[in-house]
Amino acid sequence: MIIDVKELYQKVDDYMNHEVTLQGWIRNHRKQKEFGFIDFNDGTFFKTTQIVYDNKLGDFDEIQKLRVGSAIEVCGTVIASPAKGQTFEIQLKSLKLLGDCPENYPIQPKRHTREFLREQAYLRPRTNLFGAVFRVRSVTAMAIHEYFQSHNYVYTHTPLITTTDCEGSDQMFKITTLDFNHLPEVDGHVDMSKDLFGKQAYVTGTGQLHGEAFAMAYKRIYTFGPTFRTENSNTKTHANEFWMIEPEIAFCDLNGLMDIEEDMLKFVVNYVLEHCPEEINFFDQFVEKGLKEKLTKLVQSTFTRITHHDVVDILKQADVKWEFTPDYGEDIAKEHERYITEYFNGPVFITDWPKDIKAWYMKVNEDGKTVAAVDLEVPGAGELMGGSEREADYDKLMARIDEMGVDKNTVDWFCNLRRFGGCYHSGFGMGFERLLIYLTGVENIRDVIPFPRTPGNCDY
Amino acid sequence: MIIDVKELYQKVDDYMNHEVTLQGWIRNHRKQKEFGFIDFNDGTFFKTTQIVYDNKLGDFDEIQKLRVGSAIEVCGTVIASPAKGQTFEIQLKSLKLLGDCPENYPIQPKRHTREFLREQAYLRPRTNLFGAVFRVRSVTAMAIHEYFQSHNYVYTHTPLITTTDCEGSDQMFKITTLDFNHLPEVDGHVDMSKDLFGKQAYVTGTGQLHGEAFAMAYKRIYTFGPTFRTENSNTKTHANEFWMIEPEIAFCDLNGLMDIEEDMLKFVVNYVLEHCPEEINFFDQFVEKGLKEKLTKLVQSTFTRITHHDVVDILKQADVKWEFTPDYGEDIAKEHERYITEYFNGPVFITDWPKDIKAWYMKVNEDGKTVAAVDLEVPGAGELMGGSEREADYDKLMARIDEMGVDKNTVDWFCNLRRFGGCYHSGFGMGFERLLIYLTGVENIRDVIPFPRTPGNCDY
Repeated sequence: MIIDVKELYQKVDDYMNHEVTLQGWIRNHRKQKEFGFIDFNDGTFFKTTQIVYDNKLGDFDEIQKLRVGSAIEVCGTVIASPAKGQTFEIQLKSLKLLGDCPENYPIQPKRHTREFLREQAYLRPRTNLFGAVFRVRSVTAMAIHEYFQSHNYVYTHTPLITTTDCEGSDQMFKITTLDFNHLPEVDGHVDMSKDLFGKQAYVTGTGQLHGEAFAMAYKRIYTFGPTFRTENSNTKTHANEFWMIEPEIAFCDLNGLMDIEEDMLKFVVNYVLEHCPEEINFFDQFVEKGLKEKLTKLVQSTFTRITHHDVVDILKQADVKWEFTPDYGEDIAKEHERYITEYFNGPVFITDWPKDIKAWYMKVNEDGKTVAAVDLEVPGAGELMGGSEREADYDKLMARIDEMGVDKNTVDWFCNLRRFGGCYHSGFGMGFERLLIYLTGVENIRDVIPFPRTPGNCDY
Repeated sequence: MIIDVKELYQKVDDYMNHEVTLQGWIRNHRKQKEFGFIDFNDGTFFKTTQIVYDNKLGDFDEIQKLRVGSAIEVCGTVIASPAKGQTFEIQLKSLKLLGDCPENYPIQPKRHTREFLREQAYLRPRTNLFGAVFRVRSVTAMAIHEYFQSHNYVYTHTPLITTTDCEGSDQMFKITTLDFNHLPEVDGHVDMSKDLFGKQAYVTGTGQLHGEAFAMAYKRIYTFGPTFRTENSNTKTHANEFWMIEPEIAFCDLNGLMDIEEDMLKFVVNYVLEHCPEEINFFDQFVEKGLKEKLTKLVQSTFTRITHHDVVDILKQADVKWEFTPDYGEDIAKEHERYITEYFNGPVFITDWPKDIKAWYMKVNEDGKTVAAVDLEVPGAGELMGGSEREADYDKLMARIDEMGVDKNTVDWFCNLRRFGGCYHSGFGMGFERLLIYLTGVENIRDVIPFPRTPGNCDY
């Protein structure tokens, strides 16, 4: 019976002094004259397993030639280990080479820079760091599904191809089946009616508008899927393709929304702490000192709720020389975010933002100046979620659309939701990679996406 | 306390004779002189709840004017119901109108055609049929995640934007940030180096190649995400955007792959039967008679395994006048699929297909003529999954790439997986919508996708 290394770690007492067969890869190979030690990993568990062998084996010389990276099948006995840092090892009985690996294999048992490993995106999940990052990515995704499904949310697959203009079509990729070198023309312009959909289509930057339609049927829905932005921006936090979670809830106001955001985030962080202890310990030790304490503290904290206006008051009164002067009518800068989470020593919901710097679909407050929007600022992560109560009044929404210059024809169905049993409702968006950066301590978005797409980078 | 209708149905004994507050929508409203009955639904549960009220209420006249589709908040007492088909109803105490709905609301309590409802894609989840379909879609997605996560698979977000040519770039949408009416040129051709990624990029038709890279690190991975095809095809089974599940498993041969496919499918069907009994009963009664029995039977059946060659033998010997003559070197037609699942009275794995009709990355068998591919044929659904053992030998793969004219430069990294500790491995793809068609009995792919995209159709 071939078993997973994960199974072996979980039930090591059951397997002790029994024979097991494992299939996986050589992470490291240390050779002595009469002995050899293979660090073995099959990808199902963070930790490697030590395979020990000696020259009593008939193929001792051949085994000693095995190179790092090779795929092997090993059969051996689980024994208590005398070595430090491990409770068991495997005394080899027989070994089969399943896939060779050459001397020039790029992933060697030494420290590689993250920049180098980015160039080897198809191999980097075999390293400790990226192996841990992408497992946490998977477990975090599951945590999100578990949270929403267990709270009566319907997972809604909103379309990626769209003709609806939510965030501005200049921020969306155009898609086409036309041949760029032989474009059909009419009246001196490209004739998009000849394209597959009969008009210009885009890949979307949000599922929110479509999500609202489903929230008006199911009360609670969430999206979780890839999202695209054309931003020509080379920073640590920008990618042209990333994943977003966008819950939308009917009969929910801004306070109800904050309750959900807080509850969800604590659930997810707790889930990852419970399901990935080895990975979190590794990040804590080698990536971000204090990570585990940071996450544990978040789960136990109460999130502060404060208006944008009051935040600006605090910033203005602070004895700090700001690079960007705090202003009641402006967005707050990264330095302000940092200050305010330190000020409250925990996560902070900032509510009621100046309407001119927020999106057209947000509910305008009674003051006529602010919108019922909320950003969640988290210590060490900055803005983790952004949400709002949506404008539920048809006439007010139409006025905002005119004011903001949104293409009315593409959002008419969305506006109609307000006419047909529309009700007060709210939703938020969370960038999945931003959450992963927070959970792993890895700073660059390129290092939490399996095959990141950034300007000029679309290999693989 | 506002509760969900789902909660009320699940714990009706606890709530009996207690007061509850609900928020949701009017599905139907029947008025009598001294009484009224509102069919109420909040989207959390398939069934509606009957709200009864009488003219002792001060606002009786106003309540009687409420129209179908309106959003309301009701407060009332849960009482045992004398009416047939329900165990409880709610005796209204007070009602608040939260969102009005006009007389011309398109979704009225009568039979609408599916064609009409497709035109109202943003409203149709409010109907019984589509409400059930998209809830089953959500629950099925969760079943898939639960299956793979509990079996040590890593959920891998493979990129949607890609420059890798797996299925042929003519089948992929091109994406661009360039302005079609002002394209940069060089040497009389469009200069794609001026585009955001510095070259022509596409949205992908598969995550398999990238999935293989991660399977070589984690042993078992799965993808679950949107996929795109440019096919200009208007059939019941084609859409230009759909979701796929693509598991990839290292150290797994074709037999191992079939074990996984069978186990997974039974788990998912069973999960939906358990989690969506109301929806399945509804489909069984109104969409596909015998659906429930079909699904129950699948869970209990053993899947047949037979080679393509032997299937063709059976087809040739059958006393049937075929529209398409069965042939050892050809694909099998829909009529053959149907015959063979009836012949074996259950699901059939057809293995070892002629290599010329299958993809370049599949392992060529020792006969040199067939590949280690497998299609799963399911009664009433046709081909539900397609998979194969992958060619793990570098030289053989390169020879196939030359033979099939694949663009070598875009898949070099993929081929390198064979050089760096590559091992025998297998994977399959399952179209999520095809599974949903099977689970719901709904025949048209446009009716299992929230906002379907087909040629000429990209509204919303």
